[in-house]
Amino acid sequence: MQQLIFTNEIETAIDSIVATLEPNKTFVLVDNNTQQLVFPRLAKSTTLRDAEVITISAGDTNKNLDSLVHIWSELGNRGATRKSLIINLGGGVVTDIGAFAGATFKRGIKIINCPTTLLSAVDAAVGGKTGINFNGLKNEIGAFREAEAVIISTCLFDTLPQEELLSGYAEMLKHGLISNRDTYNSLLDFNINSADTDRLLELLQQSVNVKRRIVNEDPTEKGIRRALNLGHTAGHAFESLALHRNHPIPHGYAVAWGLIVELVLSHMQLQFPSVELQRLATYIYENYGSFNITCDDYPALLEYMRHDKKNNSTSSINFTLLHDVGDLKIDCIATEDEIKSALDIFRDLFHI
Amino acid sequence: MQQLIFTNEIETAIDSIVATLEPNKTFVLVDNNTQQLVFPRLAKSTTLRDAEVITISAGDTNKNLDSLVHIWSELGNRGATRKSLIINLGGGVVTDIGAFAGATFKRGIKIINCPTTLLSAVDAAVGGKTGINFNGLKNEIGAFREAEAVIISTCLFDTLPQEELLSGYAEMLKHGLISNRDTYNSLLDFNINSADTDRLLELLQQSVNVKRRIVNEDPTEKGIRRALNLGHTAGHAFESLALHRNHPIPHGYAVAWGLIVELVLSHMQLQFPSVELQRLATYIYENYGSFNITCDDYPALLEYMRHDKKNNSTSSINFTLLHDVGDLKIDCIATEDEIKSALDIFRDLFHI
Repeated sequence: MQQLIFTNEIETAIDSIVATLEPNKTFVLVDNNTQQLVFPRLAKSTTLRDAEVITISAGDTNKNLDSLVHIWSELGNRGATRKSLIINLGGGVVTDIGAFAGATFKRGIKIINCPTTLLSAVDAAVGGKTGINFNGLKNEIGAFREAEAVIISTCLFDTLPQEELLSGYAEMLKHGLISNRDTYNSLLDFNINSADTDRLLELLQQSVNVKRRIVNEDPTEKGIRRALNLGHTAGHAFESLALHRNHPIPHGYAVAWGLIVELVLSHMQLQFPSVELQRLATYIYENYGSFNITCDDYPALLEYMRHDKKNNSTSSINFTLLHDVGDLKIDCIATEDEIKSALDIFRDLFHI
Repeated sequence: MQQLIFTNEIETAIDSIVATLEPNKTFVLVDNNTQQLVFPRLAKSTTLRDAEVITISAGDTNKNLDSLVHIWSELGNRGATRKSLIINLGGGVVTDIGAFAGATFKRGIKIINCPTTLLSAVDAAVGGKTGINFNGLKNEIGAFREAEAVIISTCLFDTLPQEELLSGYAEMLKHGLISNRDTYNSLLDFNINSADTDRLLELLQQSVNVKRRIVNEDPTEKGIRRALNLGHTAGHAFESLALHRNHPIPHGYAVAWGLIVELVLSHMQLQFPSVELQRLATYIYENYGSFNITCDDYPALLEYMRHDKKNNSTSSINFTLLHDVGDLKIDCIATEDEIKSALDIFRDLFHI
């Protein structure tokens, strides 16, 4: 069972958890950003001071096979055994690829995730999803493997650009949409520009718990867990398109825009209230701006959606949709025409 | 729970199991040998006839990252989704790498293993070990993932060279050593050159059940499952040395010789009866010949043993040893001097 710790005493937390895991050797995976900006701030941790540091290049384009091979090689060449530990100190790229490397090196070593971005705290901390991008597709290769512990601390987020915070906040909005109206409203009431890290830690814990409840009900994603996919079928398609254009966009922005596309579908199929759709679209437009697409992009977007790994068939496209906030329906099928209409309305809502 | 089927009606078995799994698309992984020699013999199976065939090159040197990337790419490019199925039709290379590809493609699709060699039937059918060689080390990268079903049929073994049968038989001898004297004696009494496939299927089922019992007691290999490692610490070192010399040896031969090294250590540390040691050494020498090593190879062999993934530390070397047939002790530590002495005695027993 994965331990999940919310604390701002991060060095103490790391040292005491590592002491219970008794690894014979500890590795820390960082990217060049977290190596420079975060790792030095945790110098009081004796564990981190004595650890072997493995560095990969930052950015989602480096969540690839080359980086994975680099981590595997470094672990092997620097004497990792099956009783060794890897601490993944970074954003979603570092936690996803580091946990996949840890899950597969000698068929599995011990893993601790220390997410350093709001997005990776929300998204990568629970559920044991690990992986890399491959063959031009997001998370095409990976495994389900929970870490031994995840340590979440808002004090690590203060070096983040606002874009990163917003990116994580999109996942929290998603959790609000699938939980209940109170949680959802408290998120829309919070001022993400306020730097109120204490309140953010509360909202974050609430949000992670929404996710945890759903994942525990359905660890291998056969049913209700697909609720967490809300916004992601369209979002991943936006992300893949942006990658293809050589102008990557933050995952959370893609999810924010994807949420709107899927709420439009929810409105079309399940009468999701249009006033809530308008309200969220306005919030997202004001905070995240818009993603520029034209009709010419529709075939590519549909193709990406068909190949999304959550999709069971390449002849139809699957979504999780909502009747209302907190009231969801998994395994909805949308036709190509419905999706094209939803993309048309998305463009209207975002003034594209 | 993995289904395990012993049958010579293999085509019927495949079709009926696939029908219960309801994949949206079926892939068959073969190597160029099984594609030529085995696949055409199973033409009565409608499942196999309609499946997408993925081919890799035969041989342990191809159980590598390149082959894995090829399988991942073919799955993706030919429309595999998370509800697709991969049937691994081949020896240990095909079942290990195919199951690892299946375990990691989109974080896991359905898997059926159809081992076509005695070794892979014994070794790869139970326990969910999947993986590839990496960085010059055997099975350095992999995952624990059981197949949905394993279909074992001795009728597929008749195209095998005798070397392949002997290779598998070494693992059966190992299972005999760790079970009881009756099973062990029935194995030493069987004439592996007789081509009595019915008797072989009985012995095989017995042997797989020994393994299954142990794996079920300890699925993640924290304790008693290490009994299955008997012969493998020394055996993997022989195998790695042979690979380094560019003269690969069959895995089972390496295990056969490794069993003797580790029974010598068992005799030294736990008074394993020397008459049994002599008896098995004679059987193995007569059937498997010997592996040529000199004192000059000892440092390399020790280095390989230290880096074996079952080893918890790089400063000492771990073995599973025996007091007697069926009476074992896991987590024995041997010093470098003891191992060198055991290798000396191994060379004496094999007239090297």
